[in-house]
Amino acid sequence: MKISHQVHAHGLAVSRILPSRSSQRFRANAADRWVAREILRAVGDPPLGLTLWSGEEITATQGPTVARLMFRDRGALWAVALDPQTQFGDAYAEGRIEVSGNLVALVEAVFRACDPERRSRPRRERVLQQFRRPAANTLAGSRRNIHHHYDLGNDFYRLWLDDEMVYTCAYFADAETSLEEAQRAKMDHVCRKLRLGPGERVVEAGCGWGSLALFMARRFGVTVRAFNISGEQIAFARERARAEGLSAAVEFVEDDYRNVAGRCDAFVSVGMLEHVGREHYRDLGEVIHRTLAPTGRGLLHSIGRNRPCPLDGWTEKRIFPGAYPPTLREMLEVLEPRGFSVLDVENLRLHYAKTLEHWLARYEANMAAVEERFDAAFVRAWRLYLAGSMASFTTGWLQLFQVLFARPEDNRVPWTRAYLYET
Amino acid sequence: MKISHQVHAHGLAVSRILPSRSSQRFRANAADRWVAREILRAVGDPPLGLTLWSGEEITATQGPTVARLMFRDRGALWAVALDPQTQFGDAYAEGRIEVSGNLVALVEAVFRACDPERRSRPRRERVLQQFRRPAANTLAGSRRNIHHHYDLGNDFYRLWLDDEMVYTCAYFADAETSLEEAQRAKMDHVCRKLRLGPGERVVEAGCGWGSLALFMARRFGVTVRAFNISGEQIAFARERARAEGLSAAVEFVEDDYRNVAGRCDAFVSVGMLEHVGREHYRDLGEVIHRTLAPTGRGLLHSIGRNRPCPLDGWTEKRIFPGAYPPTLREMLEVLEPRGFSVLDVENLRLHYAKTLEHWLARYEANMAAVEERFDAAFVRAWRLYLAGSMASFTTGWLQLFQVLFARPEDNRVPWTRAYLYET
Repeated sequence: MKISHQVHAHGLAVSRILPSRSSQRFRANAADRWVAREILRAVGDPPLGLTLWSGEEITATQGPTVARLMFRDRGALWAVALDPQTQFGDAYAEGRIEVSGNLVALVEAVFRACDPERRSRPRRERVLQQFRRPAANTLAGSRRNIHHHYDLGNDFYRLWLDDEMVYTCAYFADAETSLEEAQRAKMDHVCRKLRLGPGERVVEAGCGWGSLALFMARRFGVTVRAFNISGEQIAFARERARAEGLSAAVEFVEDDYRNVAGRCDAFVSVGMLEHVGREHYRDLGEVIHRTLAPTGRGLLHSIGRNRPCPLDGWTEKRIFPGAYPPTLREMLEVLEPRGFSVLDVENLRLHYAKTLEHWLARYEANMAAVEERFDAAFVRAWRLYLAGSMASFTTGWLQLFQVLFARPEDNRVPWTRAYLYET
Repeated sequence: MKISHQVHAHGLAVSRILPSRSSQRFRANAADRWVAREILRAVGDPPLGLTLWSGEEITATQGPTVARLMFRDRGALWAVALDPQTQFGDAYAEGRIEVSGNLVALVEAVFRACDPERRSRPRRERVLQQFRRPAANTLAGSRRNIHHHYDLGNDFYRLWLDDEMVYTCAYFADAETSLEEAQRAKMDHVCRKLRLGPGERVVEAGCGWGSLALFMARRFGVTVRAFNISGEQIAFARERARAEGLSAAVEFVEDDYRNVAGRCDAFVSVGMLEHVGREHYRDLGEVIHRTLAPTGRGLLHSIGRNRPCPLDGWTEKRIFPGAYPPTLREMLEVLEPRGFSVLDVENLRLHYAKTLEHWLARYEANMAAVEERFDAAFVRAWRLYLAGSMASFTTGWLQLFQVLFARPEDNRVPWTRAYLYET
C-alpha cells in the first residue's frame, strides 16, 4: 500500500492508497475529500474507513477501523452525502460502493456512532423526509406493497428461512438453539401466551406461509382462519394444509385484515403490524373488537422502535414499501380506543438479531442459488437488508414487541406468568 | 316490610317500604322518583335497589338486586343525580346515603352495568369535568397533595396494611397467599426484574414507609437513595433503617423526585407515577435519563387504565388530590422521549383486587381503632375508597402496570424471562 500523503483535519486522517481499477482516471479533488469527511461526520465519526475511486483513504479516527467503504465513483459519493439513507443502499446494490470487512459490523458501527439524542432523525433526514411519501396502505396499496416483498418466489425464501418457512423473529431458549427449534419455540410461546384450548377458533391476520396457523391446529387442536394478501404465500400455505390433512381445521383466506369477519377466541398477528401503517391502527383495533369473543385473547407481534421514526428511506423504497415499525406507545393506538386490557408485553429484540444472523448465514451459504434467480443488484440489496436489519436489532435501533391483551372485564387471566415457563 | 303500592315504569319497579326515621315528614314526589330512576339509568340500570327517604323503592330490574342504596334526604338524591361522581361519595361519607348489602358488590354492579363504550367518560361527566380542576403537581402542589393522603398518621395505616407497611399492589403466587407473603413476593419480583446485584446503587422515587428500599438493601446488598415528600413516612422509614442497622445502606431523602441527583444502576418507582401528573411525565423521564447508568435498569409500577380517563371526581377531591392513573400508552410518555427500551410489561390488576380485599377486611376488623382516631365521615369515606378501589380492579376499570426498561444500546438483557420464575 503506497501512501503518498497524509493530512489531519477535523480529527480525520486522509491518506491515499492504490487507486481503484474502474475510475483511475478521475482524480478526487478537495471537494470530494471534504464530502467524504462530511459523510463520516454526519453519522458521528464511526470507526470506518472510506476509500475513494482515486485510492485516497479517509478515516474518522486514528484507531482501528471495523470495515472499509470503497466508493467506485464520484457520483456515488455525492449522492450518499446528499441523501445517505436512500443512496447508500442503492449505490451498494449497484456495486458503486464496495465493503471490505463485515457488513453487519459496518452498519453497527454507524448506528452506534450516531448521537443517541438524534437517533430518531438526524436533521438532514428530517428535511428529506418531507419529500418522501411512503407507499400508502389502502386496500389496493397494501396489496401492491405486500406483493413487492412476499411474492418474490417461495423457492427464494426457502433458501435461507427455516424448514417451516417462518419469516418472523424466532425465540431462542439460549444462543445455541437451532433456527428450526427456535421458530417452533416461538410458535409455542405465542400459543401458550394465548392459552389456546382444543376446539377454539383462531383468527390470524397476516399468516405468511402458514406455519403458525398449521402449528396451532396441529398442536393445540384449534380451528384457524388465516388471512394474507400475498397470493404466493396463500397458495403455498393451502398446499401445506392439504398435504398435512389440515384443510378442514385451517382455512387460508386471501384477503385483507380489514375484511376479517366472524368470531374468534384468539386473535393473533405475527409480523403484520409493520405493514398496516399507523393511520390504520384504529381500523385494526375495530377488526379485533368486532371479532374477539368476550373471553378472547389477542396477541400482536411486531417490529418496533424506542422512539418514533420512519423506516429508513432505502428499506421503505426497495424492500418494504409502506412499512413502519411503531413504538410500543404507537402500537397501543390499536388497542386503547376499544379499551382492551394489555396483560403482557415482551421485547425480543436480541432474538431477532439472532434470527437474522441465521438467515444471513444461510443466505450467504446459498449464494450460488440466489444468484441463479436474481441479478447482482438484487443479491446485494438483500444482503444489505438482512445485514442492516441484524445490526438494527443488535444496536437497539429496532425492537420486537409481543403484546398480549384481553377484554377489560375478563377475569379469567392467569394469576401469574409462571405457566409460560413450566416445562 | 309494608309495601303500599308498586309502579312499573321504564322497566323500573317503584315500591314503598317503611319510611326512614329521619325524613319521614318529606314525602317523595314524582320528580324524586323520576330522578331516582334516572340515576340508575345513567349507570346502565345495574341490579341495585334505591330506597328513598319516604320508604319508596326503585329498582332497575325485576331480578335479584345485589345491594340497596338508601337516600336519607331529597338533597342527597338530587345532588347525586346532578354530579354522581363527586356527590355520591360525599353523601355516603356523611351518612345521607346508606348501603345495605356488600359495598364492593354495589360498586362492581355499577361499573359492570355502565356501557363499556362509555367507560371512559359518560356525557354528563365530560361536561362536569370542564369545571373540575385537579390539584396541580407543582413542587409545592405535590407536597400538599401527598401530605393530604400519606400524613394521616402512620398508626392509622398500620391498622390495615401488612406488617411491612407496603401500600402498593402485592404479588400473590395464588389466592391463598397471605398479604404479608404477597408483599414480600412483590418486592422480590421487582428486585428480580431489576436484576439487582450486590454493591449496586438504587434510586427509589416515592418510597412510602421505606419497606422496598430496606428490602433491597437487606436481601440484595445494594445501597439505596429513597425519595419521598411525605414527612411522616420519611421519619418512619429512617427510624426503621436505624433500628435495622441499615442507615448506611439506605438513605431516606425528604425531597421531590424532580430533585433526584447522582447516578444509579437501578431506578425504581412503585406507586408514585399516579401522583406525578401527566404534564410532568417528561420531567420524570429526564430525571431517569440523567440518573441511570449506561447498563442501568428501571421499573415503573403504577395503577393504570385501559382508556384515558381522569380519576373520578370524589376520589381526586377527597382521597388523592392531583392523582391520575395513566394508560400504558400514556406511561410510555415518560420513557419514549429519551428512547428507553421497554423490556417487559406485566399487568397485575387482579393482584391489586386481592390486595385491596385484604386491606378492606383488616380495615373493617379494626374498625373500633379507626373510629377512635377519626370522625364517622372519614371512616365511611375510607371504607368507600377501599371498596371502590377493589371494585375498580375486579371489573377492569383500573389496571396495574409494571414496566421494566433499560438503555437502548444495552445488550446485557436476559435472554428470556424464565429466570423470574426459577425457584
